[in-house]
This record gives sequence, C-alpha cells and structure tokens, in this order.
Amino acid sequence: MQEVQSDKISPSLRPIDCFGLTQLAEKGKTNPASGKVTLKAKTVTEGQFRNLTFIRDLAPVIIDEPPHLLGENTAPNPSESVLAALGACLAVGYVANASSRGITLSEISIELEGDIDVSAVWGLGDIPPEKVAGFTAVRVKAHLVGDASREELAEIVAHADRWSPVANTLRNPVVVTSTLA
Amino acid sequence: MQEVQSDKISPSLRPIDCFGLTQLAEKGKTNPASGKVTLKAKTVTEGQFRNLTFIRDLAPVIIDEPPHLLGENTAPNPSESVLAALGACLAVGYVANASSRGITLSEISIELEGDIDVSAVWGLGDIPPEKVAGFTAVRVKAHLVGDASREELAEIVAHADRWSPVANTLRNPVVVTSTLA
Repeated sequence: MQEVQSDKISPSLRPIDCFGLTQLAEKGKTNPASGKVTLKAKTVTEGQFRNLTFIRDLAPVIIDEPPHLLGENTAPNPSESVLAALGACLAVGYVANASSRGITLSEISIELEGDIDVSAVWGLGDIPPEKVAGFTAVRVKAHLVGDASREELAEIVAHADRWSPVANTLRNPVVVTSTLA
Repeated sequence: MQEVQSDKISPSLRPIDCFGLTQLAEKGKTNPASGKVTLKAKTVTEGQFRNLTFIRDLAPVIIDEPPHLLGENTAPNPSESVLAALGACLAVGYVANASSRGITLSEISIELEGDIDVSAVWGLGDIPPEKVAGFTAVRVKAHLVGDASREELAEIVAHADRWSPVANTLRNPVVVTSTLA
C-alpha cells in the first residue's frame, strides 16, 4: 500500500486511483445510461438565515448570511456556496484530466468571482427576476503547477470547464420547481 | 437585548432583525445599483478530489467525492453542494418573506432532488456537454409550519422560488469562463 506523504515532503498532490478512473471512463462510454442519477439533499432551518443541509450520512453543510444581509456570519452564503461548488467541480476535472494524461500536478488553486445583483432578493416589482436575480457571469482563473507545458495545462483547464457538471448547471437552463409539501 | 431561546423552549425559529429587513428592502428599491456586487472565492486542492474553498475569513468549505467516484467521502460532492446552496437560499427567502408578512414560522425543512448524468464528466466524445452535463431538473418540496393559512405558506414558497438568487442562477444561462493564470 502506498504511503501518503505530507505536502511538505511530496511535490505532488495526493493522487487518485488511476485504474479506477479508467474504469469509470469506460463505464461512462459503454453504458452512458448508468450515469443518470438523482442526487438528494435536505435543508433544515436552524434559525434566522442559518441552514443545515443533510446529504447522505455526511456532516451537514452549513450556509448562513453575512451581517449586512442579517445573518450570523457563521458560514458562506448561498451564492458564495455555488462558487465553492464550481471551484471544487473544476478542480476534480483538473485532477482527473491530468491523471488520464499522465501529468502530475503539485498545486491547484482557483480564483472565482461572480457578478450578482443582491438587491433583487427583496423583489423589485416590475423587473422580472430573470433580469436581475442570480449570477450573470462567473470568471475562473486557475493556477496549475505540474510536469506539463503551459499548453497542456491550458488544455486541462479548457476540458474541465467544458465538461464540468457544475459549470454546465450554471451555463445551461435548469428547470427548478418548488411545491409546498 | 433579546435572549435567544433554545428550540426546545420556543415554538418559533430564531427570528431575524425585522427592522433591518425593511431597511434592506428599501435600499434595494430606492438604490438598486447598490446591490450589484462581485462575490469571490478561492478553491485549493488538498489532494485527490478533496478541495477547500476559502470565502472571506470563514472556515473553508470542504467538498469531496464519494468512493464510487474515487473520492474519500469526507464531504458532499460539487453537485450535491449546489443543492445545499439552493436549499439554503430558498430557506432564507421563506424566512424573509414570512417576516415581512408578519408570519412566524416554527419549522422549515426542504427536500431537494436533482437529475444529473454523471457519465458525462468523463467526456462522451460526440455528444456536446450541454446535452449531458449538469443538472437538467431540480425539484424542491418545502415543509413549512407557521401561523398562516396553507395558501399564505404556498405564496411564500412561490415568491422565494421566483426571486431566489440561486434558483435564478440555475434557471438562467450564466456566462462561465475559465482561464489559466
């Protein structure tokens, strides 16, 4: 069994299971229907704007609001959490892509920024929400260090951006429907 | 100063600052430009598919993958994190809306499910990613308990759904661009 080295000793990030990656890619190509799943979550309000979301048997995800939006500032707010989801999704793509190309990455950090109009959360009357609410643009700047040319690293960034589930969730229209139970 | 009562004693959820809410709504209406902001985040890969996202000066958001997707299962995955963001965003809307209507809510829980094709993350070749990657539909079922009629509670759910920043981020096309630093 391979010993996991600390970042101080090893120049590479802790590697994923490359054989498992090949198997996943094969499964996705030979049996695409197997990838169609329904993900579930349950959000419970603790109080004020602080919410706990339960996913599988994991510790709850905490999301709050900052003080100027009347929150208790104990955790990122919902839209910031979307940026976190996008950053992590792209990073998974970089790692998987680099691994499949035989490239070892020693550092990944991603700066994300998203333009949003938060005045809209209060309901602006005559302006339809699709014109004012939610992110309009999200910019991602990826810092990658690894044993590859700049061109190869740029290809990894482009490929992950193109196929990232969260990037596509943002980019493409998703049907969101709410009902009272 | 108001004492915050524990949920065991008080039948209502810990209330928000209603005066602050009125001020925010006024500010949004009289000076909508003040609401245009750019949110920021920085994602750093720890190893494998485990990523830490730093937002303001808060503790990092941890996002991982489950074992069948080669992760270490220490936290929700990126798309599940999007569901958490949506749930929390809608809950903020329920609380704000109920407060502004003078309704006291004693319980909010939200079931979320999202349809996604994860086979697409590996790149399916000829199929363009917008056809296969990311959520296609997200369904929300809100359980609300409060001193209001079912009709009023349904109005709260509908209003939050319509104006939620995260719901609109999902519903409307967002321009996502990635560059290598």
